Amino acid sequence: MPTVDILLPGFGLDTDQGYPAFCGVFLVRGPDAAGRPRNILVDAAHVGRRPFLWTALAEHGLSADDIDTVVLTHAHWDHVQNIDLFPSATLLVHPDERRYAHTPHANDWATPAWTGLLLEQLPVREVTDGEEIIPGVEVLGLPGHSPGSIGLVVRTEAGRATITGDALHFAYVATTGRNPLVFWDADQAERSIGRILEVSDVIYPGHDRPFRLAADGGIDYLAPFALTVTGVGPDTPGLGFADSSARPSWVMPGIQEQRALYEKNADDSRRRISRVPRVVRPARAPRAAGPGSG
Amino acid sequence: MPTVDILLPGFGLDTDQGYPAFCGVFLVRGPDAAGRPRNILVDAAHVGRRPFLWTALAEHGLSADDIDTVVLTHAHWDHVQNIDLFPSATLLVHPDERRYAHTPHANDWATPAWTGLLLEQLPVREVTDGEEIIPGVEVLGLPGHSPGSIGLVVRTEAGRATITGDALHFAYVATTGRNPLVFWDADQAERSIGRILEVSDVIYPGHDRPFRLAADGGIDYLAPFALTVTGVGPDTPGLGFADSSARPSWVMPGIQEQRALYEKNADDSRRRISRVPRVVRPARAPRAAGPGSG
Repeated sequence: MPTVDILLPGFGLDTDQGYPAFCGVFLVRGPDAAGRPRNILVDAAHVGRRPFLWTALAEHGLSADDIDTVVLTHAHWDHVQNIDLFPSATLLVHPDERRYAHTPHANDWATPAWTGLLLEQLPVREVTDGEEIIPGVEVLGLPGHSPGSIGLVVRTEAGRATITGDALHFAYVATTGRNPLVFWDADQAERSIGRILEVSDVIYPGHDRPFRLAADGGIDYLAPFALTVTGVGPDTPGLGFADSSARPSWVMPGIQEQRALYEKNADDSRRRISRVPRVVRPARAPRAAGPGSG
Repeated sequence: MPTVDILLPGFGLDTDQGYPAFCGVFLVRGPDAAGRPRNILVDAAHVGRRPFLWTALAEHGLSADDIDTVVLTHAHWDHVQNIDLFPSATLLVHPDERRYAHTPHANDWATPAWTGLLLEQLPVREVTDGEEIIPGVEVLGLPGHSPGSIGLVVRTEAGRATITGDALHFAYVATTGRNPLVFWDADQAERSIGRILEVSDVIYPGHDRPFRLAADGGIDYLAPFALTVTGVGPDTPGLGFADSSARPSWVMPGIQEQRALYEKNADDSRRRISRVPRVVRPARAPRAAGPGSG
């Protein structure tokens, strides 16, 4: 049966000066229909986790070259930026996400105008709801947070494990039913959360630890929280901590224009997709690069 | 006389799971040679600070359209990613940094292969050591951390204020004389630190608060530390804090190949520069977009 491993854990850590934006990065392994072993990376995180991703791959006995498939739950900056590390992989993304990434809304701060240039650095295969990647690993369409958000349902020995991306950022969202960050469609986002709960035994959120919903509706985390902060300490003067339980749902200003713009930009997006120069070079095993920040 | 304002403060905050990588973003204002008022942005930060940058500009009575010049101290991911917010601006960057950004070293985790595609989204003007941007604002060549790192020396009422980028990440570097992160040349990086100390009354580091060196060689910060963290608290089980005073200097594996590769890649870089499609659209005043992370 296919397996799910956490390569980089997701965190809900935020600050009032910027977003660390550490999403979960997952390794799904299993045989394809022909029985060949496959290494599927789900999301790639942003550049600030690049050395950590190299280390995590090595700890799993893999180099970047061994990843044959990268599945992108969505094209937001904190999930897509390290795809260039895997030039031997095919990039699996939803067609709506791909098209949108080439002409994002001006207020969509999580999808810079240049996102499409980055996406096309790997050969892209568009995938939609219900598509089987390998036996026991299926695409789950989860639009709302973004136009083409998807999840992966993996039939593991522990049951149906769903990697949700930011269709479900944090475990608490499973109890509130509301997506805290909506860039595309709030109602769709709410339905996508319901869909996740419907099909999942175990949930791997976009920015939180994997969990099960207990019989009483409570959250049973399957992994402990572990994070070490350097550069500040709890006694650093001027360092404060604020409660962040169940944030209010934020909806992007101008979201009502999204569908009309998406249609209006269709030709523009297709033209751009065809014109992106490929600058990523053949894979080369990277040496461990950390520690220290850029 | 020209002035320097902090739009986004720089922080040395790190974690063992990834780098928040919050660099300083600065606003330099003053009249050009013709007496016209100019708004110069120095560094743009990464996407995780985009809504905060919009807010900071608004707090200074500016929209993205009002920025006529973006100076890039270097092309690392955490300094360059928001330049697409300023389509009315010319991008000022050192020719060595620009060329390198199109063919970065495979181990240079701070400069993804796609960095050049991002750089060319604005009209670029290459600038070198000694060049005057406006009267009282001069480029300072500071190679070593990266091939074409530069600073800006601004003749303010408070004296010569130097915006250093990551030629000097943290105040303590002014006392150790060693750059903690070297991607290009360690000796050059050391000389660049000396050059900063030589020409500066006030120093605006890449990832720390502005400071003066006291007569006794101590550090006099000019601004208090202020950061609020949400999502975790000092009592969160599994959250730890580690000391980070004066990190050891990290030198990129493979750095000895850098010069030879730079020359070898010269034609390739020039070809790539000429082929980047411009996808950034005419400026549009963004509405405030925070809070909540991507």
